[in-house]
Amino acid sequence: MTADLLVRNARPMGGDPVDLVIRNGRFDTRDGVLPKEEIDATEYIALPGLVEAHTHLDKTLIGMDWYENRVGPTRNHRILADRQAKRALGIDARRQSARQILQTLPFGVLAIRSHVDVDTEIGIANIEGVLETREALRDLVDVQVVAFPQSGMLPREGTLELMDAAMRAGADIVGGIDPATIDRDPVRHIDAIFALADRHSKPIDIHLHELGELGAFCLELIIERTRALSMQGRVMVSHAYCLGMLDAARQQGLIETLVAERIAVLTVGSPAMPALPLRLMRQCGLTVASGSDGIQNTWEPWGNGDMLERAKYLAQRNGMTNDADLAETTRICTFGGAEAMGLEGYGFGEGNAGDLVLVPARALAEAVALTPSKRTVIRRGRVLVRDGALAEDLPPIA
Amino acid sequence: MTADLLVRNARPMGGDPVDLVIRNGRFDTRDGVLPKEEIDATEYIALPGLVEAHTHLDKTLIGMDWYENRVGPTRNHRILADRQAKRALGIDARRQSARQILQTLPFGVLAIRSHVDVDTEIGIANIEGVLETREALRDLVDVQVVAFPQSGMLPREGTLELMDAAMRAGADIVGGIDPATIDRDPVRHIDAIFALADRHSKPIDIHLHELGELGAFCLELIIERTRALSMQGRVMVSHAYCLGMLDAARQQGLIETLVAERIAVLTVGSPAMPALPLRLMRQCGLTVASGSDGIQNTWEPWGNGDMLERAKYLAQRNGMTNDADLAETTRICTFGGAEAMGLEGYGFGEGNAGDLVLVPARALAEAVALTPSKRTVIRRGRVLVRDGALAEDLPPIA
Repeated sequence: MTADLLVRNARPMGGDPVDLVIRNGRFDTRDGVLPKEEIDATEYIALPGLVEAHTHLDKTLIGMDWYENRVGPTRNHRILADRQAKRALGIDARRQSARQILQTLPFGVLAIRSHVDVDTEIGIANIEGVLETREALRDLVDVQVVAFPQSGMLPREGTLELMDAAMRAGADIVGGIDPATIDRDPVRHIDAIFALADRHSKPIDIHLHELGELGAFCLELIIERTRALSMQGRVMVSHAYCLGMLDAARQQGLIETLVAERIAVLTVGSPAMPALPLRLMRQCGLTVASGSDGIQNTWEPWGNGDMLERAKYLAQRNGMTNDADLAETTRICTFGGAEAMGLEGYGFGEGNAGDLVLVPARALAEAVALTPSKRTVIRRGRVLVRDGALAEDLPPIA
Repeated sequence: MTADLLVRNARPMGGDPVDLVIRNGRFDTRDGVLPKEEIDATEYIALPGLVEAHTHLDKTLIGMDWYENRVGPTRNHRILADRQAKRALGIDARRQSARQILQTLPFGVLAIRSHVDVDTEIGIANIEGVLETREALRDLVDVQVVAFPQSGMLPREGTLELMDAAMRAGADIVGGIDPATIDRDPVRHIDAIFALADRHSKPIDIHLHELGELGAFCLELIIERTRALSMQGRVMVSHAYCLGMLDAARQQGLIETLVAERIAVLTVGSPAMPALPLRLMRQCGLTVASGSDGIQNTWEPWGNGDMLERAKYLAQRNGMTNDADLAETTRICTFGGAEAMGLEGYGFGEGNAGDLVLVPARALAEAVALTPSKRTVIRRGRVLVRDGALAEDLPPIA
């Protein structure tokens, strides 16, 4: 059980100051003896835990030798380079996932959904590695593991069986990837992952990079199966660039159908790919999450995993500059991600998990625009990070 | 005269290590007594001074109260809010330009071209303010001042005369803005700024946000007048989004014409605006520069002025991830900017200005991807910043 805590003058999402009490790891508004430990949050904005809803914990190169990227420009070049690097560089999924989690903890990232590679060369070793890390660091962060057929599924014999093994080994979510452009057979790919999810009673999270009408067609296939299998609220589509490439009427129609089937959409706000219509998506009531995608791996050399910086990227990609819009992109990186991931007890309300990220800033928009580093991070009432530094009494890390 | 300096194992642009000697403020490869002061650059990448080729020093809000941005979405909304804020917030161009320069010095920004507002409300007060700062900080950074009719020129009576006054007051470059969409008369706007530049024998730097074929037409007008007035090598077009919106043949034709007239193009890699074809532009031999544009002002709340981060934005906007491409975007933020601004004695060669930015990184691409902050900045042989901290013996700052 964690120590009780009083956070004075906290400004939830930049709003008016309130005193927040955390007892037994949960927000507690009932009267009672005031906790001994106090934090003055007057100079800070208070956020709930930042939510990283899409990353690849198993393949970051953080802390390893510099990888000279000579990879060609297509997605298939990158998938091949990635698969070769796993072998050549000996990327240890257990160690690397822990490194990324510890790098993003001081930003206030307290929940992570990670796609984890499953393929015929490594089998489910990466799934096992990330699950080990999840167990070791369970007091620091919540991790969801997606079994992810990065190299393709149906064309690579044995992969579907490995996906099944990954689910039996403890993966939480069935992944998928580009049913047309990678797997070359959209109907059979999507049928296969829905069947797998149905068999294991697990949610789905599918990478969909397909562009334009091809992407829209794949999206329709996903919608139809979500409806047929009553998987409302349990399906996420990651990237969905096609939504940024359709004419206005078709775009809005598809978004409304996604809302009706409670399918969430994840966007990282990639500067080089089509921009999703964020404002419209939120106005229609779509659940929108965001993530860092790869951090310092063979795909791309950058990324720090700060989900406040991600809120900035989302705003910049959409040409948003005013305070209200920046607040909206922050909601995507907190409440939106929590809803899409199905996190329970998330947010500032009575009885919810006592998690807080205190960011030194005068306004929420300033926190997004300047992403200050000296944050204080509280999980279940326990101070894990104080002004940017990991607390000395942190629980032991394996 | 600055102290002599030996920089051991410097890796210029990430290349093989060499020892660099700076004597009397310039690189000096001749034999001679070794300087007393030495820096070991083994763990660093050596860059020449970073070049900020497009910013607005006079309107940053760094160090001022938080400005709640409620501005509407169009450029005209933003111009109006900007003009109102100058009055309402009392933005002091002298003070604010100094603040931005001191913020970007630790990144290694040693040359800056700033557009500075000229309008009928503030007259040339901002020009005078930035010129004062330039003089006060001349030992730290080279500043070029563009007289910039932000609010429009021909439709606002008296502005053209103020532009002339700004040039007489000491501005270095004649600016212009959106001849069609803001000034509503492309031929007369462009004629007016070329006449002004011709009269004062000064270069031109024009903001061109016009899109598609309208932008291409304005670009043609600029090209025609550059040729007619023999201003080759003295004209820069900032933004030029239209270049990212044309069909391939027209795009390449326009780029080749720009090259023939030695007109430089500046791009900030804006995530929400059309991406310029960087690879093609460089392959054709176009001079390409980059800049931060506004830093923390009423237009946009973000921006730190780090031109290495800008190299990352350029790469990200163009979907570039490999080491060679990141080296290319770094060249845009160093040598490209220097060429576009007409800086003399720039680079590592014998007799050139003894300026160096040492960035702790294993490869140039890592410097771009992770933008490490603990840099050492040397100007004319003098260490101004050591491992991210301003040197204690810095020349007095007004």
